[in-house]
Amino acid sequence: MKASKGTSELLAELATIGEDPRGGVTRLLYDSAWRQAQQAVARMMADAGLAVAIDEVGNVYGTLAGSDAAASHVLTGSHIDTVPCGGHYDGALGIAAGIAALSQLQLQHGQPRRTLEVVSFCEEEGSRFPLAYWGSGNVTGSKRFDGALAAKDSEGISLREAMIGAGFEPDAHRRSKRTDIGMYIELHIEQGEVMERAQCDIGVVDAICGQRRYFVAIEGRSGHAGTTPMAIREDALAAGAEMLVWLRQAAVEQGDGLVATVGKMDVSPNIANVIPGKVRFSVDIRHRDEAVITAFCERTFEAFNEAAARHSCGMTMSCWLNERPAPMDAAIQERIARIADWKGYSHMTLSSGAGHDAGLFAPHCACGMIFIPSQGGISHSPLEYTAPEAIARGTELLTELLYQLAYVEESHEEI
Amino acid sequence: MKASKGTSELLAELATIGEDPRGGVTRLLYDSAWRQAQQAVARMMADAGLAVAIDEVGNVYGTLAGSDAAASHVLTGSHIDTVPCGGHYDGALGIAAGIAALSQLQLQHGQPRRTLEVVSFCEEEGSRFPLAYWGSGNVTGSKRFDGALAAKDSEGISLREAMIGAGFEPDAHRRSKRTDIGMYIELHIEQGEVMERAQCDIGVVDAICGQRRYFVAIEGRSGHAGTTPMAIREDALAAGAEMLVWLRQAAVEQGDGLVATVGKMDVSPNIANVIPGKVRFSVDIRHRDEAVITAFCERTFEAFNEAAARHSCGMTMSCWLNERPAPMDAAIQERIARIADWKGYSHMTLSSGAGHDAGLFAPHCACGMIFIPSQGGISHSPLEYTAPEAIARGTELLTELLYQLAYVEESHEEI
Repeated sequence: MKASKGTSELLAELATIGEDPRGGVTRLLYDSAWRQAQQAVARMMADAGLAVAIDEVGNVYGTLAGSDAAASHVLTGSHIDTVPCGGHYDGALGIAAGIAALSQLQLQHGQPRRTLEVVSFCEEEGSRFPLAYWGSGNVTGSKRFDGALAAKDSEGISLREAMIGAGFEPDAHRRSKRTDIGMYIELHIEQGEVMERAQCDIGVVDAICGQRRYFVAIEGRSGHAGTTPMAIREDALAAGAEMLVWLRQAAVEQGDGLVATVGKMDVSPNIANVIPGKVRFSVDIRHRDEAVITAFCERTFEAFNEAAARHSCGMTMSCWLNERPAPMDAAIQERIARIADWKGYSHMTLSSGAGHDAGLFAPHCACGMIFIPSQGGISHSPLEYTAPEAIARGTELLTELLYQLAYVEESHEEI
Repeated sequence: MKASKGTSELLAELATIGEDPRGGVTRLLYDSAWRQAQQAVARMMADAGLAVAIDEVGNVYGTLAGSDAAASHVLTGSHIDTVPCGGHYDGALGIAAGIAALSQLQLQHGQPRRTLEVVSFCEEEGSRFPLAYWGSGNVTGSKRFDGALAAKDSEGISLREAMIGAGFEPDAHRRSKRTDIGMYIELHIEQGEVMERAQCDIGVVDAICGQRRYFVAIEGRSGHAGTTPMAIREDALAAGAEMLVWLRQAAVEQGDGLVATVGKMDVSPNIANVIPGKVRFSVDIRHRDEAVITAFCERTFEAFNEAAARHSCGMTMSCWLNERPAPMDAAIQERIARIADWKGYSHMTLSSGAGHDAGLFAPHCACGMIFIPSQGGISHSPLEYTAPEAIARGTELLTELLYQLAYVEESHEEI
């Protein structure tokens, strides 16, 4: 029997695939680096003694069949794709740790009761096509992808063409949609700096935050910066600035993990000596509780309307993205915390402000997410880093959790 | 003796030169429309019985020689160039009214004591080359134009090439610099809506405002909109928004005609789900009193520094334009008001928030500016409009003022 490879070793292998001359790794859905990476993952799974399968959109599975064929499966994993010049850990960690965990479990405990699977989702980032969660969305059916095959990348290549180019002709592989998954567990880097600041080993994710994104358009009246007295201005940017100050203050007062961000703002005509006639900005609001988001967005709309009126401007606020919060299973959270205590790892409960594949599973089955710290909170960057010791702790915790869920009879209610 | 043409008639003729297919008129320094316009102005001056001369940069003068050769001259006029798709009144009004006034004065009163001149400045707007006030700046010597001949327009043509193309070879015309001007009087549209709102016929300009323009650069730290709690953000745009709110509030509280404008703002990386790491915006501050501007700018710098510090951001504020206020001559202001009273025109004193050729003369001689209303305050637009009755009132006032200054012995102290 081979010695099982550790997570860091597998991660180091994946880090060599898609190295970007600008730094970091770039593996975009169905491109050549992506294909190499999924082939490498399939080899790693086979080397770990798992049965390898690939589905119609390119999700790669490694399976350790359980003794109870009637029991729903326990799935772990994450996504193989990256943003351009992404880091070595985002996504890849959950796949590598899943392979290492299943390999270890099989070596130590043999066949599980429930079937254990590790998945390398083909896509989560939406970096090449405007289709985030193409992998887990097709597996769960949580997301509608109407017209997706006609979607084009920045070079005008359609998703259909890209798929065929990567060997995914229609009906060449098994269907993506699964209905036999009873639990989904994902290990991921935090991509924030909350845990690092708290010097905490393990993050127990209580929910993946819901997000609403808006565009706010303010319509004022442009005018001469020298000849228009302050009192008669209809300055769209002055109105916008009041909205931004209100938004930040309201988010800070709300507390409880709510975040509100204005990341994009465009001013028109954007000339130093012309009063701005139009301003358009984004608003991104996230929280783990849908009711909190809804109430906060309603207050925001009212406050923005008042600010616009103070400046005699018009205002529209249009929602273009509304992702509901995805609560993680309470019993699994409890179990993660208990394992951490048992192993002597410090732990904290936090919500994930970023989206993850686990969010797509949450409406369908019990989900758990384990975070380990990101150095400096940096992610989506070649500078993304998590120390090998932290990775080892995350892998140990994941392994024990999967053991309890798949091997121990009384470990968890059937879902 | 010919009947003298009125201002509106001359304006209508000028409005046909440089008609832009996009609307309005476009006459850029030394281009073909500009040349036609200055030729037309020269013909109008000659038709009005004035001696025509052109200087080395293309300023066109019409002169009515006075009997007292030792007395300094009284000059009136404005600029012939326009912004792209400009209106019919900005600049052209002062030239047309000056020609009409001198023509009328000669017909009615014959030779003046002081020499009276009307000028059509070649350039004021800075639309083709980055050289605002190329006309009046060369006449007064108020502005340094180091390296100007090498300046290039948007098509890569240098000012030197453009001048030669328009017939201004070196030494082909008389020098621009004048030292014999004792008074400069300019009639102009307000380019704001203060007079229209006050239903006022005549604006007595007390000063052309000084302006300072800054770029403010805020350096924060970009981060993930979902995973970065509000408390640890270094959000450059949140800091910027506080600065803008402070600036507007401070300007409103200052009152007394001070205006402060943020017209341009650029956010980086300007992505909806990324906390802005950098923001750069313009600040434009204007007032008629230099001490007020200085004090206000100092307070602004302090307040901006505090706002940056509250968000753990860095801040730099760099001044890239500093034009001092240009006070108009008090005796001439008084005279304009008295003439308006006598003619039954309503009048008000106001400062010009926009720059004008008169600002270049103010350090050298006594200056007066007369405003007439702009419909809706609209300028630099094909929609610029001033009613013929308002133009007639402005021309009558200008004519009487020039009469008093150039014909009446005791009218004004020698300057």
